[in-house]
Amino acid sequence: MTETIRRIVLASRPAGSPTPNNFRLEEAAMPEVPDGQVLLETIYLSLDPYMRGRMSEAKSYADPIAIGDVMVGATVSRIKQSRSADWRQGDIVVAYSGWQTHAVSDGSDLRRIDPAVAPISTGLGVLGMTGFTAYAGLRNIGQPKPGETVVVAAASGAVGSVVGQIARIQGARAVGIAGGPEKCAFVKNELGFDAAIDHRAPDFARQLAEACPDGIDVYFENVGGAVWDAVLPLLNDFARVPVCGMISHYNDDGLEKPSTDRFPASMKVIQQKSITVRGFMNVEFIDQQPAFLEQAAAWIADGRLKCREDIVVGLENAPAAFLGLLEGRNFGKLVVRVSGER
Amino acid sequence: MTETIRRIVLASRPAGSPTPNNFRLEEAAMPEVPDGQVLLETIYLSLDPYMRGRMSEAKSYADPIAIGDVMVGATVSRIKQSRSADWRQGDIVVAYSGWQTHAVSDGSDLRRIDPAVAPISTGLGVLGMTGFTAYAGLRNIGQPKPGETVVVAAASGAVGSVVGQIARIQGARAVGIAGGPEKCAFVKNELGFDAAIDHRAPDFARQLAEACPDGIDVYFENVGGAVWDAVLPLLNDFARVPVCGMISHYNDDGLEKPSTDRFPASMKVIQQKSITVRGFMNVEFIDQQPAFLEQAAAWIADGRLKCREDIVVGLENAPAAFLGLLEGRNFGKLVVRVSGER
Repeated sequence: MTETIRRIVLASRPAGSPTPNNFRLEEAAMPEVPDGQVLLETIYLSLDPYMRGRMSEAKSYADPIAIGDVMVGATVSRIKQSRSADWRQGDIVVAYSGWQTHAVSDGSDLRRIDPAVAPISTGLGVLGMTGFTAYAGLRNIGQPKPGETVVVAAASGAVGSVVGQIARIQGARAVGIAGGPEKCAFVKNELGFDAAIDHRAPDFARQLAEACPDGIDVYFENVGGAVWDAVLPLLNDFARVPVCGMISHYNDDGLEKPSTDRFPASMKVIQQKSITVRGFMNVEFIDQQPAFLEQAAAWIADGRLKCREDIVVGLENAPAAFLGLLEGRNFGKLVVRVSGER
Repeated sequence: MTETIRRIVLASRPAGSPTPNNFRLEEAAMPEVPDGQVLLETIYLSLDPYMRGRMSEAKSYADPIAIGDVMVGATVSRIKQSRSADWRQGDIVVAYSGWQTHAVSDGSDLRRIDPAVAPISTGLGVLGMTGFTAYAGLRNIGQPKPGETVVVAAASGAVGSVVGQIARIQGARAVGIAGGPEKCAFVKNELGFDAAIDHRAPDFARQLAEACPDGIDVYFENVGGAVWDAVLPLLNDFARVPVCGMISHYNDDGLEKPSTDRFPASMKVIQQKSITVRGFMNVEFIDQQPAFLEQAAAWIADGRLKCREDIVVGLENAPAAFLGLLEGRNFGKLVVRVSGER
């Protein structure tokens, strides 16, 4: 009996917001494992906003996914079969298998994780790339000082939740922005932010200003759009803006209706207040990852760093969950449970 | 016989581009000189783009000029009368007298200059704030390394001309952008830039790309607008963008027609290429000014740093000259000769 694997491929490129038709679930033969390599079985698949960029044809920092290719993504996987001396069957690793049940790896992209430290799914979140992104952006660019005000949007999400908690651990005030009262309550009461503002409120900009009576020293930018407009007039002299992403614009397709050009006004404030806007990707600070993982594990152990995961069951549900992520419907780090933890 | 002074005041606030009607030439009585203070006679008045911002009501880093008040501005002045032990009649100083023939100062804002080093008008340009702005932005933010490519617009102007020349002194390639063939020839042949591109050329963006075969490592931003759009796709990973000003937007009055919002696309590139955009004003680096003045005087003496001045004669011609500055009609650092160097 031939074993098969399941995988989700890019069926077509989205125009604006993706739809379920842009994805296709396929079956394929179980791959052969060459000598020196391993067969991985996906336990958890990470869904992250950057994947939207890879669905488009435009070249970005990475090549686009080809039509018919498996959707990319980080996974927590179990080594199902090892033909490598470096890995043993049963090892749990962070891999980059993509949206599929199995994959073959030569081991170069694997990071072993210890299930005793925290639930293994956190290897995709607070103890993975999203947690590290928050840490690296704050440490290298935001550099909050005690008493300063740090603002982050998507504050109940994978990156934002860690930004605010680390800011507080470092003695800064953390103000989170989230969508809806339930997420705001979580950000304030569970994550311990100093304030949480609902960006859907009609007087959002006024509420944000009230929550930041001393202005904003660090704005960790991961959404863009209306949040930027509300943040801009509150930025203090010498404010720092680590630019991690702009999820509110990921579905822009260049065919938008004419609007106001927000660039000149933004640059005017940047100039007059000596503000630093610095884009980054976590890979440029990757040598800091071991220190982060050690530190974050200790913070989790003593209760200072909390996380919330939004776990969707079944690979076939990944496309719908991903579309929801782009619209803010997830609540916490979004992961897909692909197989049981046997 | 009562002596009088002449001065130009802000008659009304501009809506969009200023007009001659926004200014008024007045006569006034010669001011009394209190004990401990000095009477200054203006020899040269500096005209600079930042003055446009001060004509508007909007609060910026400095208070707006009140209607009826004298237009602000740096001057090279002669001490006509001294009632201070610190200053002697005949001393030549950089002052901040504004658009008028005479002013009184307590000396706190004066910097003595040595007419033997260079023509005294350079105290408003290459050996003054515009030269220092170029130096401070490059040294602290741009930080060009040998072999890197530095791009600056308004390259025949007061700041841009110094940016490119210092970049070359430091071993970088300098690419200047200027308006029209005459200015481009000056930038390339007289100032020694590696290339000069005419932003009025229909294929400007293509020419800029050809002049930057290795991309752009430092873009010294002082104009905004279409130049930014051409620069953006050429910026390299880890490029630095000192933001000194945005002259092409100084006349924006918030009533522009709808256009494309260039902000999201700009931030996307900033994020994906780990670019640093850093606003600045030269005052934050003012402790570096003495070192700059010493260094710049040496570069001028050995011919490595050249400057061109556009000298307009007569205070009454300052408004028209200033309007021309905002449209790029000047050629070199724009100064007004207010009185003879008696």
